[in-house]
Amino acid sequence: MDFKFDITFQTLGSKARLGRLSTPHGVVETPAFIFCATRAAIKGATPQHMRQENTQIILANTYHLMLQPGSDLVAQMGGLHRFMGWDGPMLTDSGGFQIFSLGHGSIAEEVKGRRQTLRPKSLLKINEEGATFKSYIDGKKHVLTPEKSIQIQRGLGADFIVVLDECTPFHVDKSYTERSMHMSHRWAERSLKEFQKEPTDLQALYGITQGGVYPDLRKISGDFINSLPFFGHAVGGSLGADKAQMAEVVEMAMEPLDPVRPVHLLGIGGISDIFYGVQQGIDTFDCVHPTRLARHGGALVPLSVWESMGEDPRGREHMNLRNARFRDDARPLDETCACQTCQTLSRGYLHHLLKAGELLVMQALTVHNVHFMNRLLFRIRKAISQDCLQEEKKKWIA
Amino acid sequence: MDFKFDITFQTLGSKARLGRLSTPHGVVETPAFIFCATRAAIKGATPQHMRQENTQIILANTYHLMLQPGSDLVAQMGGLHRFMGWDGPMLTDSGGFQIFSLGHGSIAEEVKGRRQTLRPKSLLKINEEGATFKSYIDGKKHVLTPEKSIQIQRGLGADFIVVLDECTPFHVDKSYTERSMHMSHRWAERSLKEFQKEPTDLQALYGITQGGVYPDLRKISGDFINSLPFFGHAVGGSLGADKAQMAEVVEMAMEPLDPVRPVHLLGIGGISDIFYGVQQGIDTFDCVHPTRLARHGGALVPLSVWESMGEDPRGREHMNLRNARFRDDARPLDETCACQTCQTLSRGYLHHLLKAGELLVMQALTVHNVHFMNRLLFRIRKAISQDCLQEEKKKWIA
Repeated sequence: MDFKFDITFQTLGSKARLGRLSTPHGVVETPAFIFCATRAAIKGATPQHMRQENTQIILANTYHLMLQPGSDLVAQMGGLHRFMGWDGPMLTDSGGFQIFSLGHGSIAEEVKGRRQTLRPKSLLKINEEGATFKSYIDGKKHVLTPEKSIQIQRGLGADFIVVLDECTPFHVDKSYTERSMHMSHRWAERSLKEFQKEPTDLQALYGITQGGVYPDLRKISGDFINSLPFFGHAVGGSLGADKAQMAEVVEMAMEPLDPVRPVHLLGIGGISDIFYGVQQGIDTFDCVHPTRLARHGGALVPLSVWESMGEDPRGREHMNLRNARFRDDARPLDETCACQTCQTLSRGYLHHLLKAGELLVMQALTVHNVHFMNRLLFRIRKAISQDCLQEEKKKWIA
Repeated sequence: MDFKFDITFQTLGSKARLGRLSTPHGVVETPAFIFCATRAAIKGATPQHMRQENTQIILANTYHLMLQPGSDLVAQMGGLHRFMGWDGPMLTDSGGFQIFSLGHGSIAEEVKGRRQTLRPKSLLKINEEGATFKSYIDGKKHVLTPEKSIQIQRGLGADFIVVLDECTPFHVDKSYTERSMHMSHRWAERSLKEFQKEPTDLQALYGITQGGVYPDLRKISGDFINSLPFFGHAVGGSLGADKAQMAEVVEMAMEPLDPVRPVHLLGIGGISDIFYGVQQGIDTFDCVHPTRLARHGGALVPLSVWESMGEDPRGREHMNLRNARFRDDARPLDETCACQTCQTLSRGYLHHLLKAGELLVMQALTVHNVHFMNRLLFRIRKAISQDCLQEEKKKWIA
């Protein structure tokens, strides 16, 4: 067995834990952050940059890759690792999140408390068999079933793969959520069956816990996925309307899960959310936030940066380099950061690049934010081992 | 004296030569290619990428930087080297090229035989004093004089700086060209006087030879700049309507120049043009072509690449990765290339990134094209030392 999850440290009275996720492409020390290489590319960073800034694991999106360039092509080119030049651990999602978020309106937007978007609905039909949707590239009709999702993910060849589920939006009622949960459970069984058809030591399968914001459903779903031989679990389904509700939902979703399996929290990556998740026993996180923020001129920084500028750090997780105050600021983004950008470039220069619309600034800020997330998770792991997570948290969020 | 130009090798009967350009920021082995970091950034490559792919020297544009962020700010931030994180040799131009090309219509377009562009004319006035133009950023009026160009370039702090000249377009007649040449000569004297006001070991000044396509004017201009104590010479003014005429004009421009000074050919960077220039004794070249081409999906390749695909290489200097033929091509851009991109990524993957509109492809192709140019110039230097430039040329252009 090439896959293994060892819990290496946990103190009494805390759900936070240290672990080692072993894969055929190397080990991931957990808690860990997984960076999104949506279309088989990190926007703004090469595989070499990712390694250099201490990245352990990345993910790619089945939905995007099934449409372009197609999993057959990726398989023919030697699989995702070879295709994109990343030889470390990798995860692919099931494709469900994008189908349903583009189809129903964005779940991510709901989690973040934003209004419904006006995106064109691409989801045509959803039934027991699977989901029918239109390609955002050429409008062609596609059907994604649990079996097809596994087949595609097998072609892509990531280490960790995920069962297809229906991602219900927040606004649906309990009865829809319950029916959807049971269908997702049947999809999970079909996914598992498809996965087991061709035994492999090269991929491990994650099940997803459902149940929306309802404690009784979360319990039923947790018990259900515990009963199937998944390698790991992901917390899915609606996480609620806002961050407070998300915290509640994560807690109730974690409660029934078998603690020997690794748990991934889907699509969450704010600094405070990560501390909260770790305290609930979450082992891995993913989110486009760090790399997307970089492309919009935002640099993630610890509280010490605000303190060094004599400013109130409350509620601030990043600095906006477009701000004119940085025009003549010769300091690096963060004097305590060892990333390539902070070793070479100043806030003033990055501000200039943003004003001039220079491509380079996206790379520079992406490299910094990647380093920041890896450093944050490294510090969190260290704090868990020293039983001082609360003290550590105070250095990152106020 | 921190600046020195040593001609280290030249064979009888050939104008091609090897040289060493010494600067306070290191040595440039010539012939060399200078990459354009127009707004103090290479579009798509970090300073680390540039070094890693063997770059010796880059340039930045005075015109762009005087408008944003301004030379005072760059000086306050420690100068261009520190501002942009590049500690190697660097050149700035005078700002004239952009003022006049945006003002008259593009000279570059003319050289390349394209039609006049319909860009808004930003040049308001040109007289003995200097040039008055509107900023492309905010429409504000600016006056650039020879003295001001030197002052700005002093603030920017590049190793090599250049006198302001009027860049006449191709379509002006001999009488305009002659009057303009004499004015540029007076500007060159004023530039030199301004440069000599504050003696420095940290910058060296290039004069520019004028005279358009007219042999007698090229002779007068060459003799004139020889007579002033410039460190180096640049070939400026109109180079003609097409590549054939450019070759003639470069030959006549080089003829009178004092061979002990280094010579730069402004704005030229095609592979065949570089071979031609080297054979005329040109020591350095610059052009946006390699990095711009990369951003449009083009990879520079030697003839061996076409031969390996069983294709006619005639007239081809690059491959267009957008072409559907590359969809399932698992080979690197160039099997003989040692760049980071060719070591990691396939043509098929780069094609996918272009189709998906992924930022990463610009970086990957820029890194390759930078490596390609540095390798080309390395091979040219080696061929000069072995007196086999004609044989070497056959590997790169057909």
